[in-house]
Amino acid sequence: MAPVTLDELNAAFDADFVLALDGIYEHAPWVAEAAAPHRPYPTVAALHEALMGAVRAQTADEQIAFVRNHPDLAGKAARAGDMAPASVSEQAGLGLDRLSHEEYDRFERLNAAYQQRFGFPFVVCVRRMTRDAVLDTFERRLGNDPAAELATALDEIGYITRLRLVERVDGPGLPPVFGRLSTHVLDTHRGGPAEGVAIALYEVGRSGRARLAEAVTNADGRTDVPLLSGAPLRIGVYELVFQVGEYFSRRGLDLPGQPFLGEVPLRFGISEPEGHYHVPLLVTPWGFSTYRGS
Amino acid sequence: MAPVTLDELNAAFDADFVLALDGIYEHAPWVAEAAAPHRPYPTVAALHEALMGAVRAQTADEQIAFVRNHPDLAGKAARAGDMAPASVSEQAGLGLDRLSHEEYDRFERLNAAYQQRFGFPFVVCVRRMTRDAVLDTFERRLGNDPAAELATALDEIGYITRLRLVERVDGPGLPPVFGRLSTHVLDTHRGGPAEGVAIALYEVGRSGRARLAEAVTNADGRTDVPLLSGAPLRIGVYELVFQVGEYFSRRGLDLPGQPFLGEVPLRFGISEPEGHYHVPLLVTPWGFSTYRGS
Amino acid sequence: MAPVTLDELNAAFDADFVLALDGIYEHAPWVAEAAAPHRPYPTVAALHEALMGAVRAQTADEQIAFVRNHPDLAGKAARAGDMAPASVSEQAGLGLDRLSHEEYDRFERLNAAYQQRFGFPFVVCVRRMTRDAVLDTFERRLGNDPAAELATALDEIGYITRLRLVERVDGPGLPPVFGRLSTHVLDTHRGGPAEGVAIALYEVGRSGRARLAEAVTNADGRTDVPLLSGAPLRIGVYELVFQVGEYFSRRGLDLPGQPFLGEVPLRFGISEPEGHYHVPLLVTPWGFSTYRGS
Amino acid sequence: MAPVTLDELNAAFDADFVLALDGIYEHAPWVAEAAAPHRPYPTVAALHEALMGAVRAQTADEQIAFVRNHPDLAGKAARAGDMAPASVSEQAGLGLDRLSHEEYDRFERLNAAYQQRFGFPFVVCVRRMTRDAVLDTFERRLGNDPAAELATALDEIGYITRLRLVERVDGPGLPPVFGRLSTHVLDTHRGGPAEGVAIALYEVGRSGRARLAEAVTNADGRTDVPLLSGAPLRIGVYELVFQVGEYFSRRGLDLPGQPFLGEVPLRFGISEPEGHYHVPLLVTPWGFSTYRGS
Repeated sequence: MAPVTLDELNAAFDADFVLALDGIYEHAPWVAEAAAPHRPYPTVAALHEALMGAVRAQTADEQIAFVRNHPDLAGKAARAGDMAPASVSEQAGLGLDRLSHEEYDRFERLNAAYQQRFGFPFVVCVRRMTRDAVLDTFERRLGNDPAAELATALDEIGYITRLRLVERVDGPGLPPVFGRLSTHVLDTHRGGPAEGVAIALYEVGRSGRARLAEAVTNADGRTDVPLLSGAPLRIGVYELVFQVGEYFSRRGLDLPGQPFLGEVPLRFGISEPEGHYHVPLLVTPWGFSTYRGS
Repeated sequence: MAPVTLDELNAAFDADFVLALDGIYEHAPWVAEAAAPHRPYPTVAALHEALMGAVRAQTADEQIAFVRNHPDLAGKAARAGDMAPASVSEQAGLGLDRLSHEEYDRFERLNAAYQQRFGFPFVVCVRRMTRDAVLDTFERRLGNDPAAELATALDEIGYITRLRLVERVDGPGLPPVFGRLSTHVLDTHRGGPAEGVAIALYEVGRSGRARLAEAVTNADGRTDVPLLSGAPLRIGVYELVFQVGEYFSRRGLDLPGQPFLGEVPLRFGISEPEGHYHVPLLVTPWGFSTYRGS
Repeated sequence: MAPVTLDELNAAFDADFVLALDGIYEHAPWVAEAAAPHRPYPTVAALHEALMGAVRAQTADEQIAFVRNHPDLAGKAARAGDMAPASVSEQAGLGLDRLSHEEYDRFERLNAAYQQRFGFPFVVCVRRMTRDAVLDTFERRLGNDPAAELATALDEIGYITRLRLVERVDGPGLPPVFGRLSTHVLDTHRGGPAEGVAIALYEVGRSGRARLAEAVTNADGRTDVPLLSGAPLRIGVYELVFQVGEYFSRRGLDLPGQPFLGEVPLRFGISEPEGHYHVPLLVTPWGFSTYRGS
Repeated sequence: MAPVTLDELNAAFDADFVLALDGIYEHAPWVAEAAAPHRPYPTVAALHEALMGAVRAQTADEQIAFVRNHPDLAGKAARAGDMAPASVSEQAGLGLDRLSHEEYDRFERLNAAYQQRFGFPFVVCVRRMTRDAVLDTFERRLGNDPAAELATALDEIGYITRLRLVERVDGPGLPPVFGRLSTHVLDTHRGGPAEGVAIALYEVGRSGRARLAEAVTNADGRTDVPLLSGAPLRIGVYELVFQVGEYFSRRGLDLPGQPFLGEVPLRFGISEPEGHYHVPLLVTPWGFSTYRGS
């Protein structure tokens, strides 16, 4: 579907407005219908808030009926996979459409337990989480009380629809949907940026780690493009690995054959999918620091 | 064989001195015979230097004949394993006596190439290296020129016999044969030692990592005993893993569900088997530093 | 007065016990009298707690009468100066007996305001504070309500008498009265302790700074003795100054004529007179870290 | 004199070209005359290199005669002060035109010794140094051998004329003449930029320190404009002072009345007047780091 501009949406007949947003809220044209009369919206973010406001204005029973119209996780994941731009799939490879039989069984059991407890399917914005984080969230949310869980499900629908809206509508004041992960390497042994350091980024999961990106630092000690960008950062655990030993060896320093620092991993968690994570490495052959920077 | 004291060695008849040191230098009673007349030795270290001096005083041909009397690596490793105290095997698990068929074949090929190039077996003090480091050293030493390699072989015999001597002789002035690895965790968020942080130490090899030690920090942010001690530190790559997320969670801080720092690995190399490596962690929920300390 | 042992105090007749402690509590033999029947005390700390317990068991009016028997600050300072061991005066040079006319007037005004507000003289343990800290405390305490201020005055009498008791009585379980300030310098450029770094310690006051100690780091990067010890650390602001530029210049590094780091000051506050402050410097020619260590 | 463009210079008659550059090289129209025939110059930097090339192509005797046409330091400083833009004077306040009688005498003595030794006046680009650095340089250069000193004098004339050329000529490829000093404050206690930290920048000299700039960090932990920019950074010693105690106190942390970190000074040297110095502060209430960043 070709993108539409906010101006066009603001100027459209009600019916066309509703049609243009079809599918963003699943089986729920009434959401767009409720937001139509309050146009014009100054920003896409304001439009999304109005749409969510329509959902939140309903009674709990209506909201439950609305959530019930969502597919359960395995189906949703497949669909999310379909609509995800190539860059997203490449970056974090959630791969819920490639579940092993064992994992599929586990999801099925969780889905069943969740349905029984809450009476509606488990909804989560899978593009904001690693596979492990989805499983952790699933199990944790099973312990919620029903009211808190309904609110959480609506929040997740908010994240899902915000992403869909940004993909569908061009205009000013887009709500934040993309995060960014960057790094830089500072050689505090010589007092300047470290150029030529090979870096790899991994997602760290229970069953191993998967490489998401590779880069080599430029003359400014940075990577030419962010390690992750143009998509939500998936909540989860990551590892940046810096080839520090090779770098200092190229500088010709007199270091032991087995250097103190060779391959330096920095493991860290991401909890803000729309945030900016700057994770630098300050390093000498004999020590290093890192921190969540800005 | 029961330990003997340096005083007893200094006072013994020549023949008894030689007998007491039997087997430290393989098939080479002449080493002890050459050192006997220069007694008394003030320290065990001085005795070892005198023994090595006798070896180094020989011609190159004599030294080659001496090295030839050593078994090749697989045999040597088995023997070293026999004589290694239990703590050593437990701590670093070189396990050259538990080679897979593939690894056995690789060692055989390296042994054959080495014999052909240098005319004597590959000698290395296996108690000072991880298995990966032995393989790296083996391949690197194959590139040495013959004179440099003969000197290296004698250096390794020096390390082997120094360890054997310290196990055989009690007395003042022991030469350094043991290393030490320690850590401490400082919580720079609250300005004091971090108590109760679970720590694991791993040897990191090409085919995976093996846990060598576990500990929990005490009220001083240190471990009650060093992570490694009472043996040479094996040259190789290690990883200390700190359960930082659990620690800060117990402190009750308001942190994200997916914390920025959960499990913090510090990977580092050891190149001085008889050295002291102090590898501390200075940490807040949002960053950390480490360095080779003292 | 010659020191007495705790054993002697525990075994003495009541009258001798009271006599031995004469002057520790000013014009208040009843304090020792109240503690005498509960002997023996297992530790000097327990004895001091019992003495303070006798004070705290009194009514507020009795406590006020007790505090009234103390001299006001200028007099007290002079007296504290008399009894302070030479090391204490040298270390921090509070010098309240060397007040300028202007400062004397200021203390007089504060004393008068305090007397008028609370009905008893301002009592503070001057050996635990720099001159600036005494003035800050004085002004802050003028804002207390009367009950809180009476409690604070008794706390200060506790600090004063604890110091006096430790100087008068030898025995096990001395209460903590001395603090310690130490440092070490780690050269993370070469991965080892920095030897030969000149260090100076200053007290930083409103009207300038005064040098308290000087040292040069030894082969372990530490000072042979702590920078401050054997006395309470005075609450206040300090500066450690490290001659880092000279150190790296001696190492022969190729650095700019005007180095990035020459004289490195670390300014920090002390708030725990009986604590251990370890304030290290981790340094390369291009950066440094410090923290309150342990 | 109104700025001229490089295009205009490239297109001008030789005589107009020489006139347009009059005064950049003192009493030496021949410099511009030698560079005129090689026009057009693609960049202002290339023009300056050609001008200096003409100077360096001369014999040593001609170069000495050329240097002799420069005023000695006190006169030069006054002149430099005249032409310096207001921002420069404000930023570093070299103030050689405001010498005390004592300092004036010292410069006079150095000038006389220098003239006697080298036969030409001491030339230095005063806009690239603090007053202390000028004095240090003066004394150090007195120890040079004559050939090295002549080369140094020409280098300084290169710096002086490069600055004058950039002020006179607009065009592409300006040579670097301005430096930049920036900072940012990262609160690693809460994992984000520290907003609202008051910062002062001082020049540190033998006779005290002078405030050059003040700022408060914004929401990104940075200052809205660089602390120094738009001029060469004067070679010398500086101090950044951060009001860290007030910042953490506003955050409502439970810290001692006398905080460990209140006013944090970072002292550092600048040796590259045209460089970028980024000197950040990573700080918790209990420790901090800094480094020359990028």
